[in-house]
Amino acid sequence: MTPKQPTPRLRKSPEQVRSAVHQAVIDLLSDPEGADLTIPAIAQRAGVNHTSIYRRWGSREALLADVVVTRLERDWPLTDTGTLRGDLTAWAQAGVASIRTPEGRLLVRAVALSMPGSTQAQGERAQHFERRIHAIEHIRQRAAARGENPPPLEQILDQLIAPLYLRAIFGIEPPATGYPELLVNRLLNNAADPATT
Amino acid sequence: MTPKQPTPRLRKSPEQVRSAVHQAVIDLLSDPEGADLTIPAIAQRAGVNHTSIYRRWGSREALLADVVVTRLERDWPLTDTGTLRGDLTAWAQAGVASIRTPEGRLLVRAVALSMPGSTQAQGERAQHFERRIHAIEHIRQRAAARGENPPPLEQILDQLIAPLYLRAIFGIEPPATGYPELLVNRLLNNAADPATT
Repeated sequence: MTPKQPTPRLRKSPEQVRSAVHQAVIDLLSDPEGADLTIPAIAQRAGVNHTSIYRRWGSREALLADVVVTRLERDWPLTDTGTLRGDLTAWAQAGVASIRTPEGRLLVRAVALSMPGSTQAQGERAQHFERRIHAIEHIRQRAAARGENPPPLEQILDQLIAPLYLRAIFGIEPPATGYPELLVNRLLNNAADPATT
Repeated sequence: MTPKQPTPRLRKSPEQVRSAVHQAVIDLLSDPEGADLTIPAIAQRAGVNHTSIYRRWGSREALLADVVVTRLERDWPLTDTGTLRGDLTAWAQAGVASIRTPEGRLLVRAVALSMPGSTQAQGERAQHFERRIHAIEHIRQRAAARGENPPPLEQILDQLIAPLYLRAIFGIEPPATGYPELLVNRLLNNAADPATT
């Protein structure tokens, strides 16, 4: 064994800092004691200087958003299955699988927690949420390019995203089987929404 | 004018304490600076002793839940209109009106914030949310007693509650007109859900 060297705290590469900070956020979110998710607490847990966090992310909200988007994009990927129904079902299946896990529920909760207060700049709100919506918009445009007639984005928000997010936030288990398909059926059966009223 | 007496801080009636504490929570939630919603901060703002808050509510989460339920029950009342469609539409109309206001959005955000972390006792979760669900269950039972065939509670959760809560949490404006009726139409048009899969 070589003699112990002083830990070169400031020598972490930017990617190592990012990875350590992300993991610290996940750990603190998962803390059963409900640890305070403050930047000093995150810095301490990650073994980085809190100034590095402020410099890189600017605010706790921006950091939370970065963690959440990174994990959600990993866990809820966008698959090109060749049909609108297939793409939406694959997305919903990944979502349902994710919110069945404690970490998946924590991430959705973190999305809600990272929202700035209502009176703050609305423009800053939900960069992560905008990116998720962008993902769904991508599925829609792919469907339109195939000649399919996708429902409006707002309807996908109401009928597909909202039930998954609500269940994650409130810890309500999705039905044991067939839930992704059920949500997609409801959505696509209502595609002619405006005409049915 | 009578000479100024020392303020009898401990003389507030239980109802005055409750009212002052509730208002302090609403004020802090509304603070554009995103003030910390801690029990000492709430106590200071309400002009009560923080031990009174712990004694009465036990935890920050229980206090938030009490504030939220009280306001939601005031703002989203249950009207008996004589039909399932009418009752659900009245409920959705009150909900949409509420989430169009900053305070209404804050309350729904507070519901999410007041949820205990995923690893904490699930039994304790969402007493306020359970009470909201109880309200919807009441509408369902009234409909069943009239001989109507209401959709399952889980479907009402997915198609009526989830879109309103999601929009409140993420600050997404509901469509300008006809939104409560649209949500109820989608829900009731899908009442035969299981058979359509």
